[in-house]
Amino acid sequence: MPPIKIGIVGLGKIARDQHLPALAANPDFDLVAVASRNASQEGVASFATLEEMLEAMPELDAVSLCTPPTVRYGQARQALRAGKHVMLEKPPGATLSEVEDLAQLAESSPGSLFATWHSRYAPAVEPARQWLASRRIRKVHIEWKEDVRVWHPGQRWIWEPGGMGVFDPAINALSIVTAILPRRFFLHEGTLQFPENCQAPIAANLYFSDSQDTPITADLDFLQTGPQTWDIHIETDEGNLALRKGGSQMFVDDQLEHEAPEQEYPGLYARFAELVARRESDVDVAPLRHVADAFLLGRRETVAAFHDEG
Amino acid sequence: MPPIKIGIVGLGKIARDQHLPALAANPDFDLVAVASRNASQEGVASFATLEEMLEAMPELDAVSLCTPPTVRYGQARQALRAGKHVMLEKPPGATLSEVEDLAQLAESSPGSLFATWHSRYAPAVEPARQWLASRRIRKVHIEWKEDVRVWHPGQRWIWEPGGMGVFDPAINALSIVTAILPRRFFLHEGTLQFPENCQAPIAANLYFSDSQDTPITADLDFLQTGPQTWDIHIETDEGNLALRKGGSQMFVDDQLEHEAPEQEYPGLYARFAELVARRESDVDVAPLRHVADAFLLGRRETVAAFHDEG
Repeated sequence: MPPIKIGIVGLGKIARDQHLPALAANPDFDLVAVASRNASQEGVASFATLEEMLEAMPELDAVSLCTPPTVRYGQARQALRAGKHVMLEKPPGATLSEVEDLAQLAESSPGSLFATWHSRYAPAVEPARQWLASRRIRKVHIEWKEDVRVWHPGQRWIWEPGGMGVFDPAINALSIVTAILPRRFFLHEGTLQFPENCQAPIAANLYFSDSQDTPITADLDFLQTGPQTWDIHIETDEGNLALRKGGSQMFVDDQLEHEAPEQEYPGLYARFAELVARRESDVDVAPLRHVADAFLLGRRETVAAFHDEG
Repeated sequence: MPPIKIGIVGLGKIARDQHLPALAANPDFDLVAVASRNASQEGVASFATLEEMLEAMPELDAVSLCTPPTVRYGQARQALRAGKHVMLEKPPGATLSEVEDLAQLAESSPGSLFATWHSRYAPAVEPARQWLASRRIRKVHIEWKEDVRVWHPGQRWIWEPGGMGVFDPAINALSIVTAILPRRFFLHEGTLQFPENCQAPIAANLYFSDSQDTPITADLDFLQTGPQTWDIHIETDEGNLALRKGGSQMFVDDQLEHEAPEQEYPGLYARFAELVARRESDVDVAPLRHVADAFLLGRRETVAAFHDEG
C-alpha cells in the first residue's frame, strides 16, 4: 500500500512536539500539507484553513485534527464528508452529542474516524490489561495530581466553560482505566471543587463502582507541588498492580515488571494506519462520558480563587 | 400471545397516578406483583423488595421500575439477569455510563430493555414529527417554564447532586425535540443558574445547533408564576409549527391542527408490549446526554438562594 497522504490541521504545541515527529518516523504516512492560521511547515504545502487544504489537495487521504475541541466538530464533519480519514486529538469534542453525531456520520462515510486517547498507548498499559484479565479485582484507586502552574502556565482556557480544569489531565487516567479494567464502571458520587473565579474544577474526589460492586476511587488535584503523581493502584486476589508515571511503569507488589520508552504518539499513528487499511473507525467516548457524568452528578464546592501567578 | 405478567417496583405517586391505570387498561399486560418498601396493592402479590418478588414469582415476565433513578441501575441489572423484560421511568439512570452498561447487558440478555420518555407519547408529537419531515427547518426555540413550588412542593432531592433542578422538567422538552427533529443537534454554549444553596440549576439558557447550523435555543425556568409554558416553536420554509402544553397541542401558523386527550403512559405500555413481542430493546440516551453536556459545557452563575416556602 502506498503511504497515506496526510494533512495536519492546527500547528500548535502538541502538533509540533508529538504529531510531526511521530509522522516523520512512520513510513505508512506521508505528511503533505498543514493548515494553520498562524504557522507553516517547511517543505510541506501550507494553508490557512482546512477548507483551502481540501480544495487545493484532492489527493489527500487523511487529516489529523490538532485544533482545540470546540472547533473540531465542524472540521471533522467537513473532512469526513470529503471522504477523508480523520484522526481527532483528545478529547474528541466539546460535548458527547457532537461526538455521537460524528461517529454516526463516520458509519456512513468511506473514511475512518479515530478518536484518540494517547495515554492508552503508554508502554505499560497493554501489559497491565493483560495482567488484570485473569485476576479478580478487589479495589482500584486513581491518584492524578499535578501542578497546573507547571503544565499549563497562563492557559486561561482550561478554567473556562468546557475547559474541564483538573479533568483535562485526569481524562488521561480515565482513558487508561476504561482500557484496562474488564468491566464498565460508573459514578456513584463525587465532589468537584471549583475556585470561586473559575468555571472548571481544580480538584475532585470520585467514587465509582462496576456491576460487581468493585470500589473504584479517584483523587484528582491540580495544585500538587513537589513530586507529581499519575498513578493507578489495583488490588487483586493475586497481587497488587501499580501503574506509575502515567502508565509508563508497571509494578506488581512493588516490583518493577515493565518499563519502556514513551511511544504514545507513534502508537496512535500505527493504530490509525491500521484503521485506515481496514476502513474501520474507533470512537470510544467512555472517558469523556465519565467526565460529563462527574459534572452531572458531582457535588460542587466553591474554594479559593485560582491565580496563575501563585 | 398470553398477557405479559408484569410487576411494578416502587409504588410512589407516578406509579399510582400513571402506571397502574395504564396497565389496568391494557389487555396485553397482567399486573401480578408489586414491590415497595412502604406500600402494597390490593389484589396483587406485594413484596418489600424486587429480590423477594423475583424469588417468589419465577413466572414473572417483566418489571416496570418506578423507583428513583439512583437505585434503578442495580434493580434493572438484577431483573435483566433474571431474564425479565425491563421498563425504566425517565431519566433512565443517574449517569450516562450506567445506562450504557444496562444497554450493553440487554443486548446479551433474553429480556427487552425500554428506557421510556413519556413526553414522546404526547398526542401531537408524532404528527409534529411527520409535519416537519418534509420541510426545511430554519429555527427552533424551546420555552419550558414552570413553577417548581407548584409541581415539586417540598421535593428537596431535586436540588441535590443528580436532582437536575430545572432539567427535571426540561428533559421532557429535550425528549420531544430529539424525537421530532430530523437531525441530531448539540450544545455550543449555555448558562446555568445555580441558587447559592442548591446543587442543581433553577434556570438555564442553551444554544444548540445541528450539522446544518440550524439555531436551536432553549429558555428554561423553574420560577415561572402565573401561566405555565411548555412550548416548542419551529420555523420552517413552509410555515411555523408550535407544540404547546407539553406536546398535547400542535399549531401551524397559529391554527390548532391537532389535539387529543393525554395518553402518554398508555402509549408507553403499548410500545413496551411491542418491544417484548419482538424481543427488542429501545434505549435512547440522547435527552440525558444533552443534560450532561449542559452541565459539562455550560457557564455557571450563582443566583439568589431558593427556599421552597417562597
